[in-house]
Parts: sequence; structure tokens; C-alpha cells
Amino acid sequence: MKNEKKEQTIIFKNKPIIIGHYSIVGPKEGKGNLREYFSEISEDDFFGQKTYEKAERVMIERALSGAVKNAGIDFSDVRLFLAGDLLNQIISSSYAARSFDIPYVGVFGACSTMAESLALGACLVDGGHFDTVACATSSHFSTAERQFRSPLELGNQRPPTSQWTVTGSGATILSSKGHGPRITCATFGKVTDFGIADVNNMGAAMAPAAMSTLIAHFRCTKTKPEDYDLIFSGDLGKLGSEILIDLMEKEGYKLGLNYKDCGQIIYKRNQNVLMGGSGCGCSASVLNSIILKRLISGEYKKVLFMATGALLSTLSCQQGDTVPGIAHAIVIEGEKNE
Amino acid sequence: MKNEKKEQTIIFKNKPIIIGHYSIVGPKEGKGNLREYFSEISEDDFFGQKTYEKAERVMIERALSGAVKNAGIDFSDVRLFLAGDLLNQIISSSYAARSFDIPYVGVFGACSTMAESLALGACLVDGGHFDTVACATSSHFSTAERQFRSPLELGNQRPPTSQWTVTGSGATILSSKGHGPRITCATFGKVTDFGIADVNNMGAAMAPAAMSTLIAHFRCTKTKPEDYDLIFSGDLGKLGSEILIDLMEKEGYKLGLNYKDCGQIIYKRNQNVLMGGSGCGCSASVLNSIILKRLISGEYKKVLFMATGALLSTLSCQQGDTVPGIAHAIVIEGEKNE
Repeated sequence: MKNEKKEQTIIFKNKPIIIGHYSIVGPKEGKGNLREYFSEISEDDFFGQKTYEKAERVMIERALSGAVKNAGIDFSDVRLFLAGDLLNQIISSSYAARSFDIPYVGVFGACSTMAESLALGACLVDGGHFDTVACATSSHFSTAERQFRSPLELGNQRPPTSQWTVTGSGATILSSKGHGPRITCATFGKVTDFGIADVNNMGAAMAPAAMSTLIAHFRCTKTKPEDYDLIFSGDLGKLGSEILIDLMEKEGYKLGLNYKDCGQIIYKRNQNVLMGGSGCGCSASVLNSIILKRLISGEYKKVLFMATGALLSTLSCQQGDTVPGIAHAIVIEGEKNE
Repeated sequence: MKNEKKEQTIIFKNKPIIIGHYSIVGPKEGKGNLREYFSEISEDDFFGQKTYEKAERVMIERALSGAVKNAGIDFSDVRLFLAGDLLNQIISSSYAARSFDIPYVGVFGACSTMAESLALGACLVDGGHFDTVACATSSHFSTAERQFRSPLELGNQRPPTSQWTVTGSGATILSSKGHGPRITCATFGKVTDFGIADVNNMGAAMAPAAMSTLIAHFRCTKTKPEDYDLIFSGDLGKLGSEILIDLMEKEGYKLGLNYKDCGQIIYKRNQNVLMGGSGCGCSASVLNSIILKRLISGEYKKVLFMATGALLSTLSCQQGDTVPGIAHAIVIEGEKNE
């Protein structure tokens, strides 16, 4: 069962199966385009807690619990929990993991975390190390805003290139047995930095990393954009997506109507989110709602899911550093595509 | 090549080989007990940079470069770089990864990161997904102190239970081919919280997690403490180690003279470090110096290396949370032990 190794891309021999998923979002996301697809919409963005940070961890706990239930398994069947988030020292994930009696591996890829944890988790299931693993991530508008930018109470005006951090979490259960869409391939990204220093323009900072990973993926797998029903980027937003389309075109790849950005589809146009949604929870909640539901129903057969992350901190910005990006991608194929 | 799965513990079928290692430390560590074992000692704790944060990333860059050279391979042979550190959004690792044309996976396990990255990396090599991977982590006294505690300029008095963050980095190259000690087994830890809320007593917060992982490891592998030449914990320090010994004794396991803590051996008694060394760089620099050198020389045959992490942030403390701990462990056997 030697896996086929093609540079950055792993083609899975055993094709880990997505046996469960769950998405939970806040009130604003619940009023967006994907309302009918989310597993749970909370009308309270505190999720019953006293602080937004504690709210974020509750979202992950509920996402994991929901995904386990959706998979029809017990918590004891989950052998490893891979999770990460945007907060310093990924406290949302680690404190959520405290609530479960499951070995835990913390990961960090900024907003690429959903794809990173799934790519790693798929390797661990494919390699036979763990029968069943859970992957999750989250973000919360109010925790991200005050950690990365300014206290919300200041009411700062948002620059036109800025995006709106999604309040949401998604969890996915991968297993070597069962029924569901399969992860057939994973491409691990390289850190890419084109010198963007504007912390309010994350889309532009992440687009070159997305290009790097997409090109590596297409070359390794000898596929083209049109070979996928849909190609989703995580949270490039409107500007970042346009940059990616331009960059790809210069490299000879035409991203057509089958290319979507999770950050652009999650909110409605009138929701005042400028360039669109962002945050780990953006791609996580979109994957674990409309994307997986449509893969399960057979509406999508083959999806390339690529989440992008901006690997900055407030301190690296303050010290004059530019913003490096990264993107990891997985291919998910519907059960009916076999 | 199905791996033997025993709860939290993976017994590797293909036993990934440690083909290269490198440790780099600052001036204080260079005056400690392990002076002769480190690959590189810098007399300048700025490592030629203008800020301590940039210094920390240079340490990782040099550790990875040194380990690749030590392995006698090219950078292009390294197919994945797994790294993490203590700084917000693990910027030391991510910015270091920017310097290398290698796919990157960010991980976070606080001071357990060296063991976490090696356990994950070993799975990826064992599973045949990557021929060769690099694992690294770092910490810097001056970046950790100002991020987690107080500006150094304040000259705050240190509480007696506090530890001294090691300025150091270590990198390890794992491969499916070559010569060197082998990782034969990995135990992934669970998040454990016994309710310690004192951020100046990390050893006490991490000891229960260390106990949990050790017991899981001994039970799964049907081994006892005396089956190992040495058992190393990462940075429990003097107090944490004593707590661990007590906790283990209550569970029927006697940790004898073959149990050491990296945080207790790295500095000399007269170096004014109170409970001992701590930080990701503590276990990383001790593993990638004396431990691996003695495994290679044959002086050690079988070592249980367990790094422990305290999964807090300043914000979780400020919001009244206690400090959860985690510990991951790997077994390394000398080539001459086969």
C-alpha cells in the first residue's frame, strides 16, 4: 500500500472516508446565503458564555459533538482530534479538547487550518495509524477583531479591502470504514510571500500561496481546473480571488465558473462585509455545510477544497514584516463518483 | 504493513530513522551542563538581528539548515517541514519556513511541540506519505518573557516556582532510508487539567498530563519504567518532576534514577534558573544534542522522550481559566539496539 508520492501531493491509496460533519455559525452567518445548509445557527454570538473567547471554544465543542453524532459513532471511536484556530496559542481548540477524552494534536495554519487538519488527518487514516480522526477549526468575529485589529468598542472604520471574520466552526470525521465522500488526494503548501504588508488586505497576501498550491496540485495530478466540479478557495475574498484568477491565467490555467471562494458565498451582498468572509471558521463552516451536503447528495462529484492562511501576528506586523501566506488543498470525491 | 494500534500509542512498522539533527542555543545555555553537546552556541542572544523575535526565527532557520547538513542530504530531499513554537501565531516557525522551498505544516503543542512534531512526522514517514521530513521547534527567553509575562525592562522578581525559558532550537530529520536511531513508537497525549491557575507554576500544571501519557504508554506497550535506559520529560522542572514521580508512584509505577527532566539538566545549579529550564527549545535542544548523540554512540539504547506543554495564553489566564497540559511521547532506539 505504498502511496504515490508526487512532490507536494499525496494520492491516497486507502481514500479516507468522511463519515460525519457539522457546522455551527453565529447570527450574521445564519442570515447569509447558506442558512439552509448549516447544521446549527445560534442567535446568540456569546453562545451562552461570558466572553467571546469562551464562546468560540463552545462552538468547537458543539461542532465536534455534532460531527460525532452525525457520523453515528461514539466519542470513544474517535482516536485523535486535530484542531487549531486563530487565537494566540490556539486556546479555542486546546480548551475545547480538554472537554473530550481523546488524544489531541494542535495545528496552526491560520485560515488554512481546516484543509491542514484534514490533509494531516487523511494521512494518518490512510497510513493505518488511526482508524478514525476528527478535524476541526473555528473563528469568531469578535475574538479575531480584538486580537488582531482593534477593540470593537472603538468602532473603527473598516478599510475597503478588509474582510469580515466568520463566527463559525466546522468539524469533520474521517475514517477508514463507513460511507461518505472520500478524500482522495492532498497537496501540502509552501509558505509564499509576495511582500504585502497591509494587514487589512489578507486576500492579496494569500493569493500567491493559493496559486503556488494550485499549480503544484494540477502539475502533480496532471489535472486541469475543468476536471473538478468545483474548486473552492477558503477566504481569499473578492479581491484575493480576482488576484488568484489573474495569477493563474498568467501561468496558463483558466479558473472558470467552477471556481468559488467560501468567503464570497457565505454572506449576502447587503450584509456589509466588504471583500467577504474570512477566518478559519469561513472555509470550515462552508465545507461542513453546502460542500459536503452536495457531495453526499451527488450534486458534486469531485471538489478541490483549498484553504488559505495568512501567517502573520500583530507583533510581526509591528516589527515591519510582510505577510506570508500558505494554502493546503484536498480533493474530495462523492461516494457516487467511485 | 498495518500498524499496530493500541489506544493512544502507535507502534511503527517501518520505524522512521533519525538521519540528522542539530541544536543551537544562546549564551546562557552554552554555559550550562550540556555545553559540549550542542551543535552551535551563539554568544549573541540577538543572533545578529534587531529584535528577539527575529532572532528566534534565525535559530530555527539555522537548526533546520544544520540538521539537513548533518543528515548529508539536500534541502530538496526534505518533503515536509513540521514546526511550531510559543509565539502568537507561531511566527518563529512560519517565518522560518518562508526561507525554505519546502511544504510546511504548522503545529502547536506549547512546550510539547518537539515530541508532537516528531510523533506526527514519524507517522507520515512510516505511512509512506513522505520519504523525508524535518521537525523543529524553538523558544527564546526574551520573546517568551515579554509575551507571556512582563517586559524584561521591568525587572520583576521571579517567583520561586518559576522556570527559565531556554533560548534554543532543535531540528531533527526523519527518513525512511539511511542510518541512525529509529523512532519505534509514539504516544499521543490527551489534554489534562488538574485546576492549576498559577501561571508561574507550569511544572505543576503539566505533571498530570505527563502522568496520563506515561501511564497510557506503559499500558499500551506493556513496558515498565525500567525497560528504558532513560526516560526524559521535557520541561517539568524540579517541582513538576517531583510531582510526576509522586503521581506515578500512586499509580504503581516507580520512576527511578533513569528518569530525567530536560529542564533540570540543561543549566548548572549556580545559573539562577529556580525550578530549571522550560520552553519548546528546552526539550528540543536537549534531544538534538546529548540524547541523540548518546543514542548514536550506543551509550543509550532505548529512550522514552516525552515533551510536555502548558496550553494557556495570557488571555485565558486573564479570563480566569486554569492551565491545561498535554504530553506527547516517542520511543527512540539506537541503531545498535536492533
